[in-house]
Amino acid sequence: MSEIIQLCQRAREASYALAAASRADKDAALKAMAQALRDHTTDIVAANALDVAAAREAGTPESTVDRLALDPGRVDAMAVGLEQLAGLVDPVGEVVRGYTLPNGLELRQVRVPFGVVGIIYEARPNVTADAAGICLKSGNAVLLRGSSSAAKSNAAIVGVLRDAAESTGLPADVVQGVPEDRAAVKELMQARGLVDVLIPRGGAGLIKAVVSESTVPVIETGVGNCHVYVDAEADLDQALSILMNAKTQRPSVCNATESLLVHADVAEAFLAKALPALAEAGVTVHGDPKVVALGKDVVAATEEDFGAEYNSLDLSAAVVDSLDSAVRHIRQYGSGHTDAIVTRSQSAARRFVQAVDSAAVVVNASTRFTDGGEFGFGAEIGISTQKLHARGPMGLPEMTSTKYVVVGEGQIRG
Amino acid sequence: MSEIIQLCQRAREASYALAAASRADKDAALKAMAQALRDHTTDIVAANALDVAAAREAGTPESTVDRLALDPGRVDAMAVGLEQLAGLVDPVGEVVRGYTLPNGLELRQVRVPFGVVGIIYEARPNVTADAAGICLKSGNAVLLRGSSSAAKSNAAIVGVLRDAAESTGLPADVVQGVPEDRAAVKELMQARGLVDVLIPRGGAGLIKAVVSESTVPVIETGVGNCHVYVDAEADLDQALSILMNAKTQRPSVCNATESLLVHADVAEAFLAKALPALAEAGVTVHGDPKVVALGKDVVAATEEDFGAEYNSLDLSAAVVDSLDSAVRHIRQYGSGHTDAIVTRSQSAARRFVQAVDSAAVVVNASTRFTDGGEFGFGAEIGISTQKLHARGPMGLPEMTSTKYVVVGEGQIRG
Repeated sequence: MSEIIQLCQRAREASYALAAASRADKDAALKAMAQALRDHTTDIVAANALDVAAAREAGTPESTVDRLALDPGRVDAMAVGLEQLAGLVDPVGEVVRGYTLPNGLELRQVRVPFGVVGIIYEARPNVTADAAGICLKSGNAVLLRGSSSAAKSNAAIVGVLRDAAESTGLPADVVQGVPEDRAAVKELMQARGLVDVLIPRGGAGLIKAVVSESTVPVIETGVGNCHVYVDAEADLDQALSILMNAKTQRPSVCNATESLLVHADVAEAFLAKALPALAEAGVTVHGDPKVVALGKDVVAATEEDFGAEYNSLDLSAAVVDSLDSAVRHIRQYGSGHTDAIVTRSQSAARRFVQAVDSAAVVVNASTRFTDGGEFGFGAEIGISTQKLHARGPMGLPEMTSTKYVVVGEGQIRG
Repeated sequence: MSEIIQLCQRAREASYALAAASRADKDAALKAMAQALRDHTTDIVAANALDVAAAREAGTPESTVDRLALDPGRVDAMAVGLEQLAGLVDPVGEVVRGYTLPNGLELRQVRVPFGVVGIIYEARPNVTADAAGICLKSGNAVLLRGSSSAAKSNAAIVGVLRDAAESTGLPADVVQGVPEDRAAVKELMQARGLVDVLIPRGGAGLIKAVVSESTVPVIETGVGNCHVYVDAEADLDQALSILMNAKTQRPSVCNATESLLVHADVAEAFLAKALPALAEAGVTVHGDPKVVALGKDVVAATEEDFGAEYNSLDLSAAVVDSLDSAVRHIRQYGSGHTDAIVTRSQSAARRFVQAVDSAAVVVNASTRFTDGGEFGFGAEIGISTQKLHARGPMGLPEMTSTKYVVVGEGQIRG
């Protein structure tokens, strides 16, 4: 039996104990894990220093090295994250619905853990503690496969978390790291039946690879080609404020806006304000011919631009003839993450909300709000852009399945 | 562009109109479809007669021919099914949760259709009308791929349903049949992005093929190796009644019981009653050595027996030393469909319900109740045995996704 299959089976065994654990048990483990991270800050930072040195040696860009690097402050932030999880309501055991059937059977649909969850993620080692904590609180044993560039950091963090979980009476195998080699990941993705769900967290390439190679059910996360549509009835000052925030407040993340659509009736007036403001903020606008005609620093957009998730200070832009044209554009090029309309018209807002089929549809606000923290979930494992199971920011309830509990007194079917 | 891709794109176009349709629109279409089935009974029965003749010609077993055959009564039953769907609440638009965020943003999570659903199913042509109706009511365009043995029947039914939908103002392409050839099914299973979810309905072989070949997200349905565990504290008369019902009331279906586990403390007393009753009902018992020792007509069970979904008058049986042994047995051999305990002990019931991770866990009742109709859902597209998205009987709400609607007045992120 391969190492990965053994790992999965240990996770399955551990998941049985974890599924039976009370909220108090799980919160005690989370607090012990937080304390242990603090107690082992020196070891974790030392292990991380080796990853950082290797990354610099390999010529990794400094921005990536920064995401990889840990210091005592970042280790403490991981600990705080685990403590916050301990403060959240336990989703396991929640009765989603329940009633008594005509024959007297009592029916309840109850939240239960998935069982075993695999997380495949990139550079940031803080995801290791974060994902382990969310899985533990939701009753799932977790298999963590981080990037090889953070292998030593991740191994140190996983070791600390396992020992801490075990010290409170849970099996250490509720948290396990997956070995570095590619064959191991491949096997993990094929472990249908042993792993209940795989969640890739990272760039589009990682997510696409997991989705296409996995036979384990996958929750797709995070690719965001988000739009702001400025309607004919928009308050143009509000539209400008929303656009600038959505594009520039944090351009590297999935809920940042990548594409601007402007109704022809207000295109000239709006772009006269927006294009200089965008240029001032360092944004390169890739426009269709109408946008190019209205601004001096606008680059001509290609077909690829409209489909792009830039994650940078770039913005595609087009003038549309109607709200329905905006909707068609979003259907053609969007990624189903977050799309916003700016309008004073109730009917335009209603039509946009109905017709745009994305995880989040926003009226008169920035696309940047699509986030578990902003939505008040307290924790977020990622933002699902698929329609099955969970869509949008995923908090603790999204990390569970349900079962039906049927209680009778001898009922048989006639 | 291939025929299937064109079909999928027409379905996508049609899904936009259907997603915007009101409940009244959809109910009018369902009623028109029901009436059209009745009006075209003669044509449908005639088309079916060709399928039936071809099946007999091919030497198909008479039981399969019976499932394939339509008569005016069966056509009317399809029409009644569609009318019943018109009477059910529309899941689309239901606000699953909603609140106002601290910054004044109004957040609502709202049910929306998936978009395009593919159903791949076997012999019974009544599934054609049934699945089309459920998808229409839940706002989904549907691609129906029935078995080639029912091709003429299905084509006749699909033609009638399409015309009826169109007569009420919906696009005909809300219902489409998928051509017979294998390449078409393969392409359908690979149409990720064009098809939102695939639901196979049929035997284990069909489901396994779809799960392993599909890149479109799949909802696995219906394989049931269900257990009845007779606890040391069971009321043995009640246990016998439940076992006989669960095994013999309709042995061909997925919620019929395939395996009996008996606690050692009551094995002799219970099997002394149960084995003769089972034999009397024509059930062949495949027992472990302890069961073999207690009955005269018991066949020695193989390892395969304990994992088998017989769908016939066969039953595997084993004596277990404890409730925990029963749980371990179910974890090892069960399919996660429905498992029942018979016990008077509150703590045994509680432990079994917690530890058995199946779509339905039943206390003191027959496994045969795991069914959308019995659960009061009004309609059922299948019984999911996976943990992602939907688990157990799937009614109309399970045929939807959700989106977040966020409404503000210019909020930007700080």
